[in-house]
Amino acid sequence: MSTGSMPSAKRWPVAILGATGAVGQTFIRLLADHPWFEIVELAASERSAGKRYDDAARWLEGTMPPAVAGMTVLPVDPSRVTAPIIFSALDSAVAGDVEQRFAMAGRFVLSNAKNFRMDADVPLVIPEVNAGHLGLIERQRSGRGWKGAIVTNANCAATVAAVALAPLHERFGIETLFITTMQAVSGAGYPGVASLDILGNVIPYIADEEPKLEREMLKLLGRYENGEVHNAGMRVSSQTNRVAVEHGHTVCLTASFSERPTVRQALDALRTWKGDEATWSLPSRPEYPLLVTDAADRPQPRRDVNAGNGMTVTVGRVREDTVLHLRMVALGHNTVRGAAGGSVLNAELLAATGRLAPA
Amino acid sequence: MSTGSMPSAKRWPVAILGATGAVGQTFIRLLADHPWFEIVELAASERSAGKRYDDAARWLEGTMPPAVAGMTVLPVDPSRVTAPIIFSALDSAVAGDVEQRFAMAGRFVLSNAKNFRMDADVPLVIPEVNAGHLGLIERQRSGRGWKGAIVTNANCAATVAAVALAPLHERFGIETLFITTMQAVSGAGYPGVASLDILGNVIPYIADEEPKLEREMLKLLGRYENGEVHNAGMRVSSQTNRVAVEHGHTVCLTASFSERPTVRQALDALRTWKGDEATWSLPSRPEYPLLVTDAADRPQPRRDVNAGNGMTVTVGRVREDTVLHLRMVALGHNTVRGAAGGSVLNAELLAATGRLAPA
Amino acid sequence: MSTGSMPSAKRWPVAILGATGAVGQTFIRLLADHPWFEIVELAASERSAGKRYDDAARWLEGTMPPAVAGMTVLPVDPSRVTAPIIFSALDSAVAGDVEQRFAMAGRFVLSNAKNFRMDADVPLVIPEVNAGHLGLIERQRSGRGWKGAIVTNANCAATVAAVALAPLHERFGIETLFITTMQAVSGAGYPGVASLDILGNVIPYIADEEPKLEREMLKLLGRYENGEVHNAGMRVSSQTNRVAVEHGHTVCLTASFSERPTVRQALDALRTWKGDEATWSLPSRPEYPLLVTDAADRPQPRRDVNAGNGMTVTVGRVREDTVLHLRMVALGHNTVRGAAGGSVLNAELLAATGRLAPA
Amino acid sequence: MSTGSMPSAKRWPVAILGATGAVGQTFIRLLADHPWFEIVELAASERSAGKRYDDAARWLEGTMPPAVAGMTVLPVDPSRVTAPIIFSALDSAVAGDVEQRFAMAGRFVLSNAKNFRMDADVPLVIPEVNAGHLGLIERQRSGRGWKGAIVTNANCAATVAAVALAPLHERFGIETLFITTMQAVSGAGYPGVASLDILGNVIPYIADEEPKLEREMLKLLGRYENGEVHNAGMRVSSQTNRVAVEHGHTVCLTASFSERPTVRQALDALRTWKGDEATWSLPSRPEYPLLVTDAADRPQPRRDVNAGNGMTVTVGRVREDTVLHLRMVALGHNTVRGAAGGSVLNAELLAATGRLAPA
Repeated sequence: MSTGSMPSAKRWPVAILGATGAVGQTFIRLLADHPWFEIVELAASERSAGKRYDDAARWLEGTMPPAVAGMTVLPVDPSRVTAPIIFSALDSAVAGDVEQRFAMAGRFVLSNAKNFRMDADVPLVIPEVNAGHLGLIERQRSGRGWKGAIVTNANCAATVAAVALAPLHERFGIETLFITTMQAVSGAGYPGVASLDILGNVIPYIADEEPKLEREMLKLLGRYENGEVHNAGMRVSSQTNRVAVEHGHTVCLTASFSERPTVRQALDALRTWKGDEATWSLPSRPEYPLLVTDAADRPQPRRDVNAGNGMTVTVGRVREDTVLHLRMVALGHNTVRGAAGGSVLNAELLAATGRLAPA
Repeated sequence: MSTGSMPSAKRWPVAILGATGAVGQTFIRLLADHPWFEIVELAASERSAGKRYDDAARWLEGTMPPAVAGMTVLPVDPSRVTAPIIFSALDSAVAGDVEQRFAMAGRFVLSNAKNFRMDADVPLVIPEVNAGHLGLIERQRSGRGWKGAIVTNANCAATVAAVALAPLHERFGIETLFITTMQAVSGAGYPGVASLDILGNVIPYIADEEPKLEREMLKLLGRYENGEVHNAGMRVSSQTNRVAVEHGHTVCLTASFSERPTVRQALDALRTWKGDEATWSLPSRPEYPLLVTDAADRPQPRRDVNAGNGMTVTVGRVREDTVLHLRMVALGHNTVRGAAGGSVLNAELLAATGRLAPA
Repeated sequence: MSTGSMPSAKRWPVAILGATGAVGQTFIRLLADHPWFEIVELAASERSAGKRYDDAARWLEGTMPPAVAGMTVLPVDPSRVTAPIIFSALDSAVAGDVEQRFAMAGRFVLSNAKNFRMDADVPLVIPEVNAGHLGLIERQRSGRGWKGAIVTNANCAATVAAVALAPLHERFGIETLFITTMQAVSGAGYPGVASLDILGNVIPYIADEEPKLEREMLKLLGRYENGEVHNAGMRVSSQTNRVAVEHGHTVCLTASFSERPTVRQALDALRTWKGDEATWSLPSRPEYPLLVTDAADRPQPRRDVNAGNGMTVTVGRVREDTVLHLRMVALGHNTVRGAAGGSVLNAELLAATGRLAPA
Repeated sequence: MSTGSMPSAKRWPVAILGATGAVGQTFIRLLADHPWFEIVELAASERSAGKRYDDAARWLEGTMPPAVAGMTVLPVDPSRVTAPIIFSALDSAVAGDVEQRFAMAGRFVLSNAKNFRMDADVPLVIPEVNAGHLGLIERQRSGRGWKGAIVTNANCAATVAAVALAPLHERFGIETLFITTMQAVSGAGYPGVASLDILGNVIPYIADEEPKLEREMLKLLGRYENGEVHNAGMRVSSQTNRVAVEHGHTVCLTASFSERPTVRQALDALRTWKGDEATWSLPSRPEYPLLVTDAADRPQPRRDVNAGNGMTVTVGRVREDTVLHLRMVALGHNTVRGAAGGSVLNAELLAATGRLAPA
């Protein structure tokens, strides 16, 4: 993580909503030593509010950063949480109402929930892929009369697929896309998937995942123009599966394009892609948002999930298809790139593009 | 397992080649109490030949049937192995030469190897799906001058897919098919997949599996006419993955048809399918070769793999596709239905159709 | 499962409390075709009561027996559940009160909960090991003024250890015992252990398990005399761990005895042990309650857990210890032998010893 | 990793024997950016010798360090491998002969094999625990007429137990010790444990592990005096198991002492232990060689294995025993602290104590 190019020595104060859950904990890990942001408040549901954080949270990985251990967990209420930047790991059951109240109260809400993702005036952003979609913020504010704003990141599997496909879509125009996923258990939160359900098993179903994946791809790869995102014109079909993997969604992709690329052309597009220039100096931006592996049997979740500190999507097995044009396999870290890390990168993009008031 | 309808009280003597490996052991388990067949000889590679079976084999599941424990392992040589029916679990590296020698020596060879599967005069058989393909035997014998014959069963993933799709292909005619598999480690034999490679992991590659799967589907679902199998006219694309599952291949299928079925029509076709009538009284034939589950999150390998003693393929999540016509998930036992059990059923079909000399 | 030696053709009507949980489902599986008992009622918590069973229960293994699918789940209330024999899979949080009310109402309660196990007038029974402990029932009834009775089975790990050690304790008298367990996730019920906690992991702690294991061993191996169980005089130390295994607790045992046996003597005691004669004709009694394996690396949960339909404990690696006298490894099915199957066998023992009113 | 206190800016050239295997790869990872050592040669068996390293090795974790990818693998022959410091990851089948030849040729051999560990003149070293044992080197050289020397590190499970127990043994004197291990699959190398053997399973046996563990504990915790190591006078019993964990051996310990400590005294001894002062400025020495966790259910391999970059042993559940005095659970990284990292720390200790000729 570079220290980036921000002029100010001060850090923006930030709060995390849903701080005790799995994604909330990943937020804490990623923000504990962040050069631009400083965690000043943690908030969670009624059950946890009022407790010390280390009493309220069952810490899932390694050691809890000491700075948060003694913080008192606040309720998810804009009158109690004061930070101007809000990272939300709230469940969709409550995110809709809560995130909206924070936005009305003038905060920038970086949301992981599905509630607002498909709203026409809400940016659904992967910075390297579609930084320009942030332009929707103005429309959102004026239309809704909000001083703050909601910026969303996408479904974790959609994020992996979109990063892997962005370079190909830019050059060759995807027309048809088949996606089959093998998703890690951490995508279901904690306690999430019961061990009796997944040990030595595959569950060929994730509630509501396929429609989310299919519609979000269109917006993620859509084109921003005149205050509007025009969805990509492709057709998408998906099947989503849960596998006995801790972190890392593996995504099998088969696609046809308006201009058929050779495998060599596709590899060249993937290898030379740098992502939107606006992201190049962001601290959480990995050197390579997209890595192509030559190994015949990679990417693999356990071996590749932490590439670029979990922010790099790894692509392999790029080959001709027997029916459409190309097939390939992509892998990314679902709770980092596909959730908390994505939100942090979105916030960095807001900062770098001058959208945040000085810290 | 019913005792079937065979008139004779005598059982055919059979031998197993490759008896010490994982599929060889499954053969032993399935044949230990078989009403029509009796294991009289076990054969394996030079390393094992001459030893007692219980010294030569590392038994993988439960308890070794006592009847085979004290047998002396023979070399895989038709001058030493005398049974008229030969179940071969040999690896493709040696199967080509050895199986051919047994067929020349007048034996019926039930092969699990890929070597002869695609030969125009060799039946590739799943009895419920294409029992009629056995008609190729005559052509094989006359063309090759063999007294015996080779009958093959298909790649394990192809078998699962073919059983699941046969009823739909018969009624609606598959035109395009996308297959993504999540395959169990037992498909790679023993020791096979290293635990360091698969614990908590997915390997998005199985050597040579995709081409096998794609070409065998065409023959399996092909039409036998005038001594020839006419491959099905569909286009097939596949991606194959290894997952941390012991037994049971899960197969995601997406298809279009020459006549588009509704979901209800598809379900009706799947639910009413009985498989070729010639199989109805075979002892290893399960009551339902194909079961449709209504549960939203089934089939699952650990929970459904043993349906019908491992001979039933379970299908679920039959639903409309967003790009083609239908998508669904199928699951079957790769070393039973997809290997040893398939061979045993093929041998039973040979017996029931009068192709075996009296025992 | 033999049909046993009961004279009557009628079956006793039985009910299952906690029927929707993991152990409740195992009860259903074991009792669905039982020669002596017939499931007539299913009961569960308020959340499930009033629903059809197949709506209330998330069925965990294979296919739900059709006979129970349409039953209406009753509340756990003796005024609503009428069967004279009650199999209870209730959690200890509610078992104390509920089971007592059923016993007061005249029912035989076969309990899996810890609540009454250590009461001086409540039998803690593994039929092959201590069938005579049922003598406590009279004292229980007279002392408590109950018409029914509570009969308990032990903690699942204690059950495995007690079956493995009973033959040695009978002959050589255990003085000191160290137990280290590696326990399957099904021991924690469903949903139980979160997959994020156990995938690729070991949890060296199971709440309240070590004290239970240590005290129940003393009673299980204790001597019944004159209406009293005299605890075994041994000292027991345990450490309990959770591992990523579906079913089957593996138990490492190290022991010293009042009379030191050679390994050969120990093996002889283990191999010739038949268990209490009163159990020999019980339908759920396996041919061998205890099997000794010669394989250097067995018993193993995945390979040995289903021995004797899950009712056989397998013992291996019996060898001299470097500090005490002997060490060995035992394995048993925690939800069958160690829970539901144990209760069923207890009920069969009640029937065979004439304690149940005629069906 | 601090840069330590070495005066010289030059780094010692080192070679790795057995560089393609699992432990060899860990050596490469740990030495790729080492402040004192520089990998100049890689050697392996005949099968790999002569190939480029990236062609010879199947890289198991993350990305191969670019510096080694293009190196030519040498044979394990002191006439071809010239570095003065030799890290050996050779298998015991060949280590005896090869390591001896390197020592005769004047090299310092840091060995992971069992061959020389118990020789009276060969140090078996965990620097924090018994740095003084290096005094055996002089006796080794004079007795064997070698210019070089062999320094060994211990069995991986013994290493974890010895670090956890050293502070208690120093203060209270262990008399009796029971060890039950749950060991990771990486301890068996690559390909090592077959997935069909360990998925959802426990293997209660590791060949030759228990005797190694029992005898090495005595030497590791022994006292060096007048050119001799006097073994610790304790009695040790062990049972070793393989579990479905990637990295990290979990070790259950039960002990009695010549002076019985309270739990509080034991915790105090564990928490204040700093390890031999000679190690304090070694670059691979973690801040805490021993960490005590307060969590009721830790240490756990997946969550604690990387503490101190894999060099810290984590101890938890320190509590009174019901038979002996104390029980506790220890966890350490078997291929880092228990293998490659241990050897690197040993070499650093050689350097810091002036035993290496100037680089």
